[in-house]
Amino acid sequence: MAQSSPNHTQTVSGWAAHDQSGNINPYTFKRRENGMNDVTIKILYCGICHTDLHHVKNDWGITMYPVVPGHEIVGIITKVGSNVTNFKVGDRAGVGCLAATCLECEYCREGQENYCDQVQFVYNGIFWDGTITYGGYSEFLVADHRYVVRVPDNLPMDAAAPLLCAGITVFSPMKDNNLLESAGKRIGIVGLGGLGHIAVKFGKAFGHHVTVISTSSSKEKEAKELLGADDFILSTNEQQMQANKRTLDFILDTVSAKHSLGPTLELLKVNGTLVVVGAPDKPMDLPSFPLIFGKRVVKGSMIGSIKETQEMIDACGKHNITCEVEVVSTDQINEALRRLARNDVKYRFVIDIAGGFSKL
Amino acid sequence: MAQSSPNHTQTVSGWAAHDQSGNINPYTFKRRENGMNDVTIKILYCGICHTDLHHVKNDWGITMYPVVPGHEIVGIITKVGSNVTNFKVGDRAGVGCLAATCLECEYCREGQENYCDQVQFVYNGIFWDGTITYGGYSEFLVADHRYVVRVPDNLPMDAAAPLLCAGITVFSPMKDNNLLESAGKRIGIVGLGGLGHIAVKFGKAFGHHVTVISTSSSKEKEAKELLGADDFILSTNEQQMQANKRTLDFILDTVSAKHSLGPTLELLKVNGTLVVVGAPDKPMDLPSFPLIFGKRVVKGSMIGSIKETQEMIDACGKHNITCEVEVVSTDQINEALRRLARNDVKYRFVIDIAGGFSKL
Repeated sequence: MAQSSPNHTQTVSGWAAHDQSGNINPYTFKRRENGMNDVTIKILYCGICHTDLHHVKNDWGITMYPVVPGHEIVGIITKVGSNVTNFKVGDRAGVGCLAATCLECEYCREGQENYCDQVQFVYNGIFWDGTITYGGYSEFLVADHRYVVRVPDNLPMDAAAPLLCAGITVFSPMKDNNLLESAGKRIGIVGLGGLGHIAVKFGKAFGHHVTVISTSSSKEKEAKELLGADDFILSTNEQQMQANKRTLDFILDTVSAKHSLGPTLELLKVNGTLVVVGAPDKPMDLPSFPLIFGKRVVKGSMIGSIKETQEMIDACGKHNITCEVEVVSTDQINEALRRLARNDVKYRFVIDIAGGFSKL
Repeated sequence: MAQSSPNHTQTVSGWAAHDQSGNINPYTFKRRENGMNDVTIKILYCGICHTDLHHVKNDWGITMYPVVPGHEIVGIITKVGSNVTNFKVGDRAGVGCLAATCLECEYCREGQENYCDQVQFVYNGIFWDGTITYGGYSEFLVADHRYVVRVPDNLPMDAAAPLLCAGITVFSPMKDNNLLESAGKRIGIVGLGGLGHIAVKFGKAFGHHVTVISTSSSKEKEAKELLGADDFILSTNEQQMQANKRTLDFILDTVSAKHSLGPTLELLKVNGTLVVVGAPDKPMDLPSFPLIFGKRVVKGSMIGSIKETQEMIDACGKHNITCEVEVVSTDQINEALRRLARNDVKYRFVIDIAGGFSKL
């Protein structure tokens, strides 16, 4: 597969990992000319997602080096193609995980294009022209306008960036399981990182009783005081887990490390639903008893469609929801990745991309 | 917990396992007098379920020896209590897994009493009076009438017996996932044993395209010719599994040995549902990628309610569905259990209980 094509004429500065040491270094590469359906986006900020870490280290065995990570991208539109009517130069734009889908299958037609089996991602994917995609750790992006959303004016760009992956990843299953229409459910959020903390905010904004379930007792205070959670279960405490059996209607599991779903499933009522949005590189343990004795449901969910992403970010505008972020400069990317690997972040690193270039 | 109580005055002959060697021997024990809400059933036939094997060998670590297995029980009612109006002496009756539930919780009130957290089973359970329950490998049973169903007149008793567990176990999730109302779905049945072969018959009776998924190529001919399956996938054949990715709407997994759900999940379309009804003693592997990339659903299901069991067996009467059984005598129970352990049965062993006593 070609890494470039004749119309890839624009030189871009960015940052890439070149091998599974996972170190990020400055990297210059080419992007395509802005086509009829494209917009070009000057990138202001890019979130650091746990997926970036998996990719730079080739945890999933699918990395095509050099890899330019980044799929929580916000910036300003600087060019629009002749077919593009919904964006204009100067617009605040966001790009998440999707770079291309087949546009023809039932999932693409029904607005579930994130489940198209030809889906290609914004980095480490193969675009329609056969080139490898490079992500948001770079000064600008050329994106098909069908995979771009508008960022509401009231949201600060740095704290909005992680909504493009973390935000939609937790919003989509909440919507899909009717948590936007019906308030007053008892919902649990497993893991209080980049995804989990946004899920708590959504849960409260949509009127639910939110319990954070975490292995770390140090998170209780912030979960309640900063994020507004109603309750906290320390999952390593057998007594607390026992006392909360069969109490929750819905659980969102955001943990990206291998773990057993059994103890978490026990917290669900009969017919309750656990949605997995993390992607551990090893299979999770699924014991049959908590599954069958409670007629419980385990679902997967992967990001969301573009239509849902726009709906999510508009809801964030309406409810004034943003991510808790720690903004880092472009020369702190490696340190941020190392800290992320040991979960030392509250709650999302966001790279100040434009700041890196303004210093040059 | 008491193994007997003062009103346990009736002497019963049966067969029990006394330790985890799993050997079954004749065993004489006591049952309660027929109470106001009880019916007494002279047992004609009792199916041998894989659960019996787990219990006699204490695979799940919960066996209270001596254990009298058997929860696929059919027979004739010989006594009815004063509160019992829906059964009379001479009726053809069936008893499955349930012996008692709390009768008060939301699940009991909503006709989902099989998910009551006080549920007690027909053997190796603790009845309301504190005694240990003994199952259908015995000459008669005293059962609360609320856990008894009527067996349609047109069904042969031997081939009907396994419907009380195997039948309801596969019927309930098919009903719950709308397969009774909507024909023409593409459904897969994993494992062609006692549960799987009935699921194939139900699937065809309800108008679906049925694919059997098995590790054993020897089952293809019978799956199609005897049971009416439309298609067969050999799950050890990577090419066949690849070719059938994203083709099925619904899969019922009846396998009771530890296995990975990943390859099976890949056969489902986006949003497709896999229901697990087997109970492996070790956790199953659930890889996240096939779950999240296809927004797929894994559900558990455990037997069914009594109302559903009556509905199931009535549907069997209507569609003339029975199990394929090999009837064994009471002195062949140990041999049958050994053969079941190596899956050497087509498709369910049924013990001729009454025949054992008529010989005495």
